[in-house]
Amino acid sequence: MKILVVNPNTTASMTDKIRETALAVAAPGTEIVAVNPSDGPVSIEGHYDEAYCVPGLLCEAKKGVAAGADALVIACFDDPGLEACREVLEIPVIGICEAAMAAASMVGHGFSVVTTLPRAVPIIEALAFKYGFERQCRKVRSAEIPVLALEEEGGGAAAKVREEVLAAIEQDHAEAVLLGCAGMTDLADALTKETGVPVIDGVAAAVKFAEAMAGLGLKTCKRRAYETPRAKKYTGAFAFAAPEAGA
Amino acid sequence: MKILVVNPNTTASMTDKIRETALAVAAPGTEIVAVNPSDGPVSIEGHYDEAYCVPGLLCEAKKGVAAGADALVIACFDDPGLEACREVLEIPVIGICEAAMAAASMVGHGFSVVTTLPRAVPIIEALAFKYGFERQCRKVRSAEIPVLALEEEGGGAAAKVREEVLAAIEQDHAEAVLLGCAGMTDLADALTKETGVPVIDGVAAAVKFAEAMAGLGLKTCKRRAYETPRAKKYTGAFAFAAPEAGA
Amino acid sequence: MKILVVNPNTTASMTDKIRETALAVAAPGTEIVAVNPSDGPVSIEGHYDEAYCVPGLLCEAKKGVAAGADALVIACFDDPGLEACREVLEIPVIGICEAAMAAASMVGHGFSVVTTLPRAVPIIEALAFKYGFERQCRKVRSAEIPVLALEEEGGGAAAKVREEVLAAIEQDHAEAVLLGCAGMTDLADALTKETGVPVIDGVAAAVKFAEAMAGLGLKTCKRRAYETPRAKKYTGAFAFAAPEAGA
Amino acid sequence: MKILVVNPNTTASMTDKIRETALAVAAPGTEIVAVNPSDGPVSIEGHYDEAYCVPGLLCEAKKGVAAGADALVIACFDDPGLEACREVLEIPVIGICEAAMAAASMVGHGFSVVTTLPRAVPIIEALAFKYGFERQCRKVRSAEIPVLALEEEGGGAAAKVREEVLAAIEQDHAEAVLLGCAGMTDLADALTKETGVPVIDGVAAAVKFAEAMAGLGLKTCKRRAYETPRAKKYTGAFAFAAPEAGA
Amino acid sequence: MKILVVNPNTTASMTDKIRETALAVAAPGTEIVAVNPSDGPVSIEGHYDEAYCVPGLLCEAKKGVAAGADALVIACFDDPGLEACREVLEIPVIGICEAAMAAASMVGHGFSVVTTLPRAVPIIEALAFKYGFERQCRKVRSAEIPVLALEEEGGGAAAKVREEVLAAIEQDHAEAVLLGCAGMTDLADALTKETGVPVIDGVAAAVKFAEAMAGLGLKTCKRRAYETPRAKKYTGAFAFAAPEAGA
Amino acid sequence: MKILVVNPNTTASMTDKIRETALAVAAPGTEIVAVNPSDGPVSIEGHYDEAYCVPGLLCEAKKGVAAGADALVIACFDDPGLEACREVLEIPVIGICEAAMAAASMVGHGFSVVTTLPRAVPIIEALAFKYGFERQCRKVRSAEIPVLALEEEGGGAAAKVREEVLAAIEQDHAEAVLLGCAGMTDLADALTKETGVPVIDGVAAAVKFAEAMAGLGLKTCKRRAYETPRAKKYTGAFAFAAPEAGA
Repeated sequence: MKILVVNPNTTASMTDKIRETALAVAAPGTEIVAVNPSDGPVSIEGHYDEAYCVPGLLCEAKKGVAAGADALVIACFDDPGLEACREVLEIPVIGICEAAMAAASMVGHGFSVVTTLPRAVPIIEALAFKYGFERQCRKVRSAEIPVLALEEEGGGAAAKVREEVLAAIEQDHAEAVLLGCAGMTDLADALTKETGVPVIDGVAAAVKFAEAMAGLGLKTCKRRAYETPRAKKYTGAFAFAAPEAGA
Repeated sequence: MKILVVNPNTTASMTDKIRETALAVAAPGTEIVAVNPSDGPVSIEGHYDEAYCVPGLLCEAKKGVAAGADALVIACFDDPGLEACREVLEIPVIGICEAAMAAASMVGHGFSVVTTLPRAVPIIEALAFKYGFERQCRKVRSAEIPVLALEEEGGGAAAKVREEVLAAIEQDHAEAVLLGCAGMTDLADALTKETGVPVIDGVAAAVKFAEAMAGLGLKTCKRRAYETPRAKKYTGAFAFAAPEAGA
Repeated sequence: MKILVVNPNTTASMTDKIRETALAVAAPGTEIVAVNPSDGPVSIEGHYDEAYCVPGLLCEAKKGVAAGADALVIACFDDPGLEACREVLEIPVIGICEAAMAAASMVGHGFSVVTTLPRAVPIIEALAFKYGFERQCRKVRSAEIPVLALEEEGGGAAAKVREEVLAAIEQDHAEAVLLGCAGMTDLADALTKETGVPVIDGVAAAVKFAEAMAGLGLKTCKRRAYETPRAKKYTGAFAFAAPEAGA
Repeated sequence: MKILVVNPNTTASMTDKIRETALAVAAPGTEIVAVNPSDGPVSIEGHYDEAYCVPGLLCEAKKGVAAGADALVIACFDDPGLEACREVLEIPVIGICEAAMAAASMVGHGFSVVTTLPRAVPIIEALAFKYGFERQCRKVRSAEIPVLALEEEGGGAAAKVREEVLAAIEQDHAEAVLLGCAGMTDLADALTKETGVPVIDGVAAAVKFAEAMAGLGLKTCKRRAYETPRAKKYTGAFAFAAPEAGA
Repeated sequence: MKILVVNPNTTASMTDKIRETALAVAAPGTEIVAVNPSDGPVSIEGHYDEAYCVPGLLCEAKKGVAAGADALVIACFDDPGLEACREVLEIPVIGICEAAMAAASMVGHGFSVVTTLPRAVPIIEALAFKYGFERQCRKVRSAEIPVLALEEEGGGAAAKVREEVLAAIEQDHAEAVLLGCAGMTDLADALTKETGVPVIDGVAAAVKFAEAMAGLGLKTCKRRAYETPRAKKYTGAFAFAAPEAGA
Repeated sequence: MKILVVNPNTTASMTDKIRETALAVAAPGTEIVAVNPSDGPVSIEGHYDEAYCVPGLLCEAKKGVAAGADALVIACFDDPGLEACREVLEIPVIGICEAAMAAASMVGHGFSVVTTLPRAVPIIEALAFKYGFERQCRKVRSAEIPVLALEEEGGGAAAKVREEVLAAIEQDHAEAVLLGCAGMTDLADALTKETGVPVIDGVAAAVKFAEAMAGLGLKTCKRRAYETPRAKKYTGAFAFAAPEAGA
């Protein structure tokens, strides 16, 4: 089984960290392919960045399917481009926010999320609502750090994340804490051990759920919501991306 | 006052129809600028098309602000790129779905929507939830026509829309019916007259609400959800779109 | 275009303040008629007061329509009598709470409300739910002042309102703050300027939305919820108000 | 114990029918006082009629308390004036819609309501939301009869109600059916016997719940939502109704 | 009329306290039978304890009906076995949480609950949602005491409950406070007197609502959700409990 | 990895079918242990049956953990005893309804469920709410067959299930259909092939999600909702089940 993990920003060091996590949890027979687009923002912080990461994500997704991927993981906690990928692919597509929330709901009654910047808070709150976890999501907390601070050694970003994780447990009575950025993927295990509360990384969760969905032989339904894009002309710079007849 | 109306697809005939509607409802002192991007899909039918229309929409939005626009209307009923535009602009940004639903809620207790293809139904249902109109939205109906059928003379598209509008009134007891595609903008008045029920076109509603918001001097709040995008590097083909420091 | 603005309490100084705001935002061609009933409570603080303001409001509304009004604004943040007015009139009827919440939802992701007495808090919370803004309404705050304190010079009421507006921004992360009483209408602009966050007055918002709705030619749907009252006998003191056949 | 039952319309024959039901279910020690105001609409069909029935209801409620009532039942299925009565009284106030829905929720998983005119449907749907029964309320059905048709012998109104009750059981799978008008109070027992499904009359339910609440010694909380109206001046025709200091 | 009150744990002193409350509020003609099973947990603190109390509760419920009970009250605030009892009985079945929440909703706009251990908080929050009171339930508070501490003299349990009741009123603005454990039944009256806010005991509320429901002649609907259990074989230790044909 | 699958009813042929499905989807390194209790109902159809299956389920769950299970699957679509198992175990516990709904939400926008008897419909609707899938669950349909009909050859049960699956796709526009009974586990693949829409069996989904959760090293949080049962005395027949100190 081959799982394609796309980091939708263009920072290779984050892709490396994501690949490492994916490899660490993958089952024996699972091949992990972790990539990022070459075109787009170096980090995704808000809707504007999301808008410019999705075309690159879609390209990587299509390439990965051509190369035989059995499932796709979108490795950004905003789950950008989730529906667009589901339209254009038949293999299961899993967002890391979606996977982390589903996993949390199976080991605790309510969870909190610790993310990077305050501007991500309303985005993740909206995702909790979209997926139906609005009653289980106690609070979305910001560590008040930019995404790329997580790539810097010694910058104190990990300490700020830890502080909010502890606050989530003590103040929100969170029974699971989600790390709300793919760049935090390396912090989950130590925090779980320290706190005794499940601290869940979406990358790991999504890889395992992708294995599960592919193992079940499930495909995205091609009726209605995720119907294949209709063949049509795209003009100008995006002409290359136009859906083809029979696609 | 100058209202920028962006049709996010690249079909100029639809932009012309939208401009006509906007001009017809604009107040005496209002200048209407109606444009479409040159790069992107010729029609927007689903999330994949949305993904490729937003970069072009953002370019037109920025150009329009540089040229003095006081408010932006996004003239596609999926309200694509609404949050991204609100991040990058200070002027009020109004989606035509959002405006149509708000207007409907002021003249009736519950409304239905008539859109083009079945694949748009879940998208519009999700918008109703996002804006808080899920209890007022009785049903989203599809006329089972592609968007560009509305640009063809004599193809029967208008007749199919009319049929669903009548069904919404009789079967859903809709007290207002929204036309769920900017390409239907020319059908509203006749249907209102025929049925005696408000049949609401989002383009007209959004233009008037944009006048209202600009007239109130309201600006998009630049804290948290719609904070200006952070200055950062964009790589490759999208380098031009990178948010600048001080942007 | 003629907009009728009814202050449903009987305090003329508040009507004057409301008229001033309405005139300040009205478009060039808009005539503002601002009135209050002669019978009823001098201020509206709770459901009991509401019950005794609605008959007077209905009289003013009917008189205004007879005099050619194109839209009605109900200038009390409890939106009393909104549905009754919609039943008995065909012109659009806009409540100032409804308008303020709709405007806020277009410039920020979540808003708070600052109202007068604690007893108004559950009323406004219920309105947020009724209009579908319960997820966008972060908090309804009370400045702990009676309505008529806003009519007194030097009583400190404005300072208390300002304090709660600042708290809404800092503590609730409100991206817009609504002034939850028509008597606060003169405070919005200074608070917007001071805080950089949209502080929205419902009177202004409702006047502009009324212009928009009338400009769109929209009428209240006369089927089902807002059907014209059925002709019938009213007994005793209210005989004069009985709906007539053909009304 | 004395239970005051106010029919808020001015039709004495309906008050008589309501009194009969109340007497039939009252416990041995319970005195029933059933009255209607002299001023107001002869039937309540929509928000406009509601607006003109509440002042009369409030007068009867205050008189009843002065005469020693231990609880108040508002005998109109729209529950008009419920909050206003709770503000001005300390004794428990029960609406017949509220009571019927609470009773239904204790004998079945989901219920439907059969009311009079289509215009009552959105009003009762809104009440289901307000009381929290929106998930248990399967459907609100209209028998398409005016309220006073229920007062006429041989007019076929009862047959139309019965037809909708049967449809609620067969089509909605209703496990309880509520009679959505006080004028239907005499129909419940026969329909329960015929169908084997609880057909619940709100008048009976409210009288028994009023006995229960008064028997528990519970009083309406006088903080916040139902605080006693503040002493203030009422002008003109309603001067008599002004809340007094110390009220 | 005979009301069966089952305390589903096996602690007789708590059953005695419950019986005392029930007797104190029962109407003149009401006979109270208060019992507990002999098999099961001595207190109910969480889902595991619930699982082992329900078989004993069902036995007592069936015995009570055989002895002529007209209604059943389940005297544990988790309302364990409510649906199972409704399936197997025809008489009305009332849970004390359900009754307390319904009563609270009739005397105040929002309530809080004070329960025993923190583990009960999510259980009661889920009940509030199940019954539709999630918008009226302001907060579920834990006094951080085990259930049986309420049976000990001088252990300070009552003082801790009082402290949380006061906090509910001051901090949550609760307009009613529910005592979230049958073992607190003796504390309600004094706390109501002290605070002036209705402090509601579910045992008392459920007994009065049971009288009301039985007085109305209402029976549990035997269609769909609460249909009589189908006749079938039970194996091993539970063979005795198998539903019989015609049961 | 060892996955314990407990069929909570006592019908061994159903356990065999469940084991077969589990083995078919298990990953190479996964050992499947499928068992059923010896005490309890032969099928689970409603809350009463549920009450008598949970004690047996808990015994099997504890035995399985003692024998080294890494995760537990509860193989009944009502997910009985889910919370009780989570309290008493540390390994992940997955219900088949929960797993099927989570899987469905990842391959389609909305799903329907096809279950056995009408009495199961409200139970599954309540589970959809509990897990947060109420907006994605389009309809719960009953094939109007008892559970054990699925164990009989040639009884037509499978044909009735198929009919409802087709109706779900055509009438509800379901983008995934869940088989709402563990006894239907052998029907999923053929129906998926026939319809081209994902027809999801909860047993298979739960086994794969259990592998995923165990593979992630996630444990049930032992704070608050799923805290280990407190040590206490159980009396009579259930004395053996009393939680021990240190448990």
